[in-house]
Amino acid sequence: MSDFLELAGRRYSCRNFSDKPVEREKLEKCVEAARLAPSGCNAQPWKFVVVVDPKLVSEVAKTTQQLGINDYLSKAKAFLVVLEDHAKLMPRIASLYDSQVFAKGDLGGATLSFCLEAESLGLGTCMAGMFDRAKLSELLDLPLDQRYFLVVAVGYPAREREEARPKLRKPFNEIVRFI
Amino acid sequence: MSDFLELAGRRYSCRNFSDKPVEREKLEKCVEAARLAPSGCNAQPWKFVVVVDPKLVSEVAKTTQQLGINDYLSKAKAFLVVLEDHAKLMPRIASLYDSQVFAKGDLGGATLSFCLEAESLGLGTCMAGMFDRAKLSELLDLPLDQRYFLVVAVGYPAREREEARPKLRKPFNEIVRFI
Repeated sequence: MSDFLELAGRRYSCRNFSDKPVEREKLEKCVEAARLAPSGCNAQPWKFVVVVDPKLVSEVAKTTQQLGINDYLSKAKAFLVVLEDHAKLMPRIASLYDSQVFAKGDLGGATLSFCLEAESLGLGTCMAGMFDRAKLSELLDLPLDQRYFLVVAVGYPAREREEARPKLRKPFNEIVRFI
Repeated sequence: MSDFLELAGRRYSCRNFSDKPVEREKLEKCVEAARLAPSGCNAQPWKFVVVVDPKLVSEVAKTTQQLGINDYLSKAKAFLVVLEDHAKLMPRIASLYDSQVFAKGDLGGATLSFCLEAESLGLGTCMAGMFDRAKLSELLDLPLDQRYFLVVAVGYPAREREEARPKLRKPFNEIVRFI
């Protein structure tokens, strides 16, 4: 594999999903990529719920639309719900730091791995960080105090890749210095 | 690019670096991969310092060894220091959430992207989350209240890949359910 940079540049936040259903086998590969992600003390502070039932997918989409935004998520064909789990750190580290000190960063890596594998399989993804947690807990039969990280909408892109929005990023020299 | 899953499975935390120097061009590609990572509101709440001066690399290694651990980081040939920057969120979101609500997760994705590009270029990486922040600020001429995320040690692996430690992860069915 020599073209990770190409994949990193190609993946974008898809905001226009087609009607084509998403194969369960592909979703499993995406979760597998997330499962392999690194984490502090290898604690793997994550659990995932993959929502594929069409009615439930529709309900999950609604939990992201409370601010009157994210209309396009109604067209998602599946959702990955990323749960933050308790992180069991090594004893020497656990005696100095909160158990969850590395969790958010670890979850960020695992979630991006899911999205990168999706991209490599031709699927579009969009992460959504704002949603009605109480409603989502009710839908997924999870405790009201469940810690959430993000939900990720999944589907096939409706448009050709070349029509995807350009990737806007700060210039290289603005964000890095070599010393 | 069809083998992201292979790359995700291959990348591991390298704890045995060779004496071979690391090319600046490769480090720049790794930073480019991080630069392209997604972030909440596309805020890109990151800055990077790449430490390549041998004397400074050695000093940075020492900041990670305060607990009597991380001896192997003395053999790193470069360090990526990942800084958490202020995240400028969209106004509607900024009115409801703390500016840094998504930052740690975003930094996790950007840092993993750096490591995945390194792996694809034959470089080994190891993330270290514990280090003497005051000392690092002094070494890098950064404010004492600088927010840090992680440092990442970089170098060529001393051993053949097949001798790398096996990747231990929780079983697939333990971390995911489909509904």
